[in-house]
Amino acid sequence: MIKIVLIGSGNVATHLYNAFSGASDVEIIQVFARTQSSAIPLAVQISNWQYLKEADLYIISVSDDAIAEVASKISFKNKLIVHTSGTTSIDVLPFERKGVFYPLQTFSKEKQIDFSVVPICIETNQKEDENILQKIASLLTPKVYLISSEQRKALHVAAVFVCNFTNHLYQIGAAICEDNAIPFEIVKPLITETADKIQNLAPKDAQTGPAFRGDEKTIQAHLEFLTNSEYKTLYQFMTQSIQHHVKKL
Amino acid sequence: MIKIVLIGSGNVATHLYNAFSGASDVEIIQVFARTQSSAIPLAVQISNWQYLKEADLYIISVSDDAIAEVASKISFKNKLIVHTSGTTSIDVLPFERKGVFYPLQTFSKEKQIDFSVVPICIETNQKEDENILQKIASLLTPKVYLISSEQRKALHVAAVFVCNFTNHLYQIGAAICEDNAIPFEIVKPLITETADKIQNLAPKDAQTGPAFRGDEKTIQAHLEFLTNSEYKTLYQFMTQSIQHHVKKL
Repeated sequence: MIKIVLIGSGNVATHLYNAFSGASDVEIIQVFARTQSSAIPLAVQISNWQYLKEADLYIISVSDDAIAEVASKISFKNKLIVHTSGTTSIDVLPFERKGVFYPLQTFSKEKQIDFSVVPICIETNQKEDENILQKIASLLTPKVYLISSEQRKALHVAAVFVCNFTNHLYQIGAAICEDNAIPFEIVKPLITETADKIQNLAPKDAQTGPAFRGDEKTIQAHLEFLTNSEYKTLYQFMTQSIQHHVKKL
Repeated sequence: MIKIVLIGSGNVATHLYNAFSGASDVEIIQVFARTQSSAIPLAVQISNWQYLKEADLYIISVSDDAIAEVASKISFKNKLIVHTSGTTSIDVLPFERKGVFYPLQTFSKEKQIDFSVVPICIETNQKEDENILQKIASLLTPKVYLISSEQRKALHVAAVFVCNFTNHLYQIGAAICEDNAIPFEIVKPLITETADKIQNLAPKDAQTGPAFRGDEKTIQAHLEFLTNSEYKTLYQFMTQSIQHHVKKL
């Protein structure tokens, strides 16, 4: 049984807690959380470092800026200590046995996650620790990838484009619907299909629409329709960007 | 049995042909296509207007600019004639019995579509024709909506944001992965989950990431990482736009 202490109680920590709670061969023996979290049983929560238990693995799942400080609180020797950040280098951890355990997913407290489809990107500086993280990650998902700190940085940027920026486009779509008394429900199957298409087609082969077709009349009609200057600027920028990419094909 | 003539052989026409071929109570008796389409049986294809058959319903599924000209070729009297365009007004059709039959989906020839989840937006100028289109659309999908020409224009703009622009973000994400020797596969579950989340959460409640958190350090690190000026400009614009929306919450 691998004993884990989880540090943090944000979205990622909470979802990891739930995922590990259902896994065999590992036990979360403690969760350090500055404040009580309703999503984690009181019995395992502590908020004072002096009660930190000895474990095989410490998973630090806190905001990027706090990782180094939190790491400095762990005084047990020769333990594997990892963080879960997409943007932070492995080297922020001042230990010999260190690693990264980065689940690439968008976590909201309100939405349950099926961890078996979540990719986990791992990095270590010792081969034996790589084996340990590989084993632990495999308890949650078959999608385990060895990703360096440099690659992880790129991956996080890509994730911002395909997730956060995409969700913002959904939000703009919802606002346009609302302004015109159209139920957003009508657009949801289109959103699903757009995401589904690129599971098997490359995005460049999945593209459709007026920018892709070079349908200037429709583009002009859309620009005239858009009165919100932010949406209009974004429409123009994205249209030009799509057309640059089409030329390169 | 309602007899339908389909005019066009593009993505929408082809998918409609396939959907109607599996439906009861309707028959596509003919498809007018300027050139032969391998996706549609030769037996029903014509490319000369003089062979156009008499039918109950003519569905014009051609490029927006060609709708008016194509409509002028139909000389049968008192028939219901509809187009499938998201952007074109019902009034482009010079008939008393006219309508719009707009399936809101992204159609690519390479990707099969389950029409039962595709919303169809209908519009007519006579109540009896509304009933006919409602009945025909219901053969393909339970998601049938009465949408005016003005609303349809807004819906099409919203669709460009959530589909075409979103797919472009996928393409940028894929390019960033490729440039850093990361398999795009790693990002696909995130894309699926991002689309899945807004089926039950409003997009504003589903947002995550550095822009939403106001994590300026990560934003700066990402901007430094991005060397492609187009991606960098888009990153800045989207980040600011997300932050404007957060302020309004």
